[in-house]
Amino acid sequence: MAEKEKSTIVLFSGELDKAIAAFIIANGAAAYDHEVTIFFTFWGLNTLRKDQQVPVKKGFLEKMFGKMMPRGAERLGLSKMNFAGMGPKMIKHVMKKHNALTLPQLIELAQEQGIKLVACTMTMDLLGLQKEELLDGIEYAGVAAYLGDAADAKVNLFI
Amino acid sequence: MAEKEKSTIVLFSGELDKAIAAFIIANGAAAYDHEVTIFFTFWGLNTLRKDQQVPVKKGFLEKMFGKMMPRGAERLGLSKMNFAGMGPKMIKHVMKKHNALTLPQLIELAQEQGIKLVACTMTMDLLGLQKEELLDGIEYAGVAAYLGDAADAKVNLFI
Amino acid sequence: MAEKEKSTIVLFSGELDKAIAAFIIANGAAAYDHEVTIFFTFWGLNTLRKDQQVPVKKGFLEKMFGKMMPRGAERLGLSKMNFAGMGPKMIKHVMKKHNALTLPQLIELAQEQGIKLVACTMTMDLLGLQKEELLDGIEYAGVAAYLGDAADAKVNLFI
Repeated sequence: MAEKEKSTIVLFSGELDKAIAAFIIANGAAAYDHEVTIFFTFWGLNTLRKDQQVPVKKGFLEKMFGKMMPRGAERLGLSKMNFAGMGPKMIKHVMKKHNALTLPQLIELAQEQGIKLVACTMTMDLLGLQKEELLDGIEYAGVAAYLGDAADAKVNLFI
Repeated sequence: MAEKEKSTIVLFSGELDKAIAAFIIANGAAAYDHEVTIFFTFWGLNTLRKDQQVPVKKGFLEKMFGKMMPRGAERLGLSKMNFAGMGPKMIKHVMKKHNALTLPQLIELAQEQGIKLVACTMTMDLLGLQKEELLDGIEYAGVAAYLGDAADAKVNLFI
Repeated sequence: MAEKEKSTIVLFSGELDKAIAAFIIANGAAAYDHEVTIFFTFWGLNTLRKDQQVPVKKGFLEKMFGKMMPRGAERLGLSKMNFAGMGPKMIKHVMKKHNALTLPQLIELAQEQGIKLVACTMTMDLLGLQKEELLDGIEYAGVAAYLGDAADAKVNLFI
């Protein structure tokens, strides 16, 4: 049996447009039967946050980070033309008009297709994010696990 | 006959400095006889816009996007130190002083070297960009075509 | 004897968080016995600047760039939530609290692990940076050398 092609994406950025690009590429690769891993680190972790507040115990700085960072896929800004939140509204509007999947739908599709969503435990520690605050069904690992996947993969992107 | 090495670049960003970096790497790879594809998506599409206005019929939001986004390689800003347009002027000035190719020249060279410039049709739809508004001699495709190229390539970058 | 796996990173961005991500991935790969190259170009070069001012002769624009760009790893800002420098202080604070290596320590570790740090000579020219201003023990090369490394590597990232 032939082994599956592998692809990995590091999602470092916490912006709506980049997250959409990452999930479109990832879902596309999974549709072509690649084994796909997205490794969420730094601001990319915000994509995985649940949209409701989760009561967890945190230190002061961790609380600050938690408050200042967007809570989940619905709340991300744009890397360009954010215009205090008007840009994301426009993008979401045109995406709806074109029947494009929203980011939460793209994430759901990714999970259905078996794409491995991995939260970087080191940056979770740094930003004070706890497992309870992130989506269910994701994995937790460090850079070593990412490198293990990437070394076997054909397509490796940093977004 | 040995097959050519392949390289792909996704140009997602719409900034002068990143576009220059993308085209320098792409032209370098083509000079080493790689088969190179640049896949322009989201803000990266602005690199391919013609610098004159093209009369096409658009909806309101698409017109807004069209007006707000830079029209072509000459009008892109910098990712750092843009200073309301002074940064790009400085960069262009030092590039001229050092006889470095300008972005429009780098694009021309890319086309002469047979680099495949591909506009992402899905984001063209979203941003309301039409073929008439983009440079001649480019190709149009979706993420599936990009993944097909990337799976065969040694060097795949997301810029 | 089996050949070593190779990895390359282009560090284009000049932000603390992205530089930290680049060096964590690079040091991780080196720990797994990859041969790693980081190619510093554009704003990424600022990571390699010595933190003291070095007296070198420069033209006016080069002096301007030199003054406006951050001098070294200690002075980089964040790509998100920079808040006029408060963000980097917060990140440095939490990194210290978690006993994470600082960026200067990550750079030192990279040099100890034999990671090749290569400054892009073309963008050094453009930004007016001279060898005396950059850290000792680094290499100097152009895009051709980078492509030579990347074509042999499994993991190639653009950060």
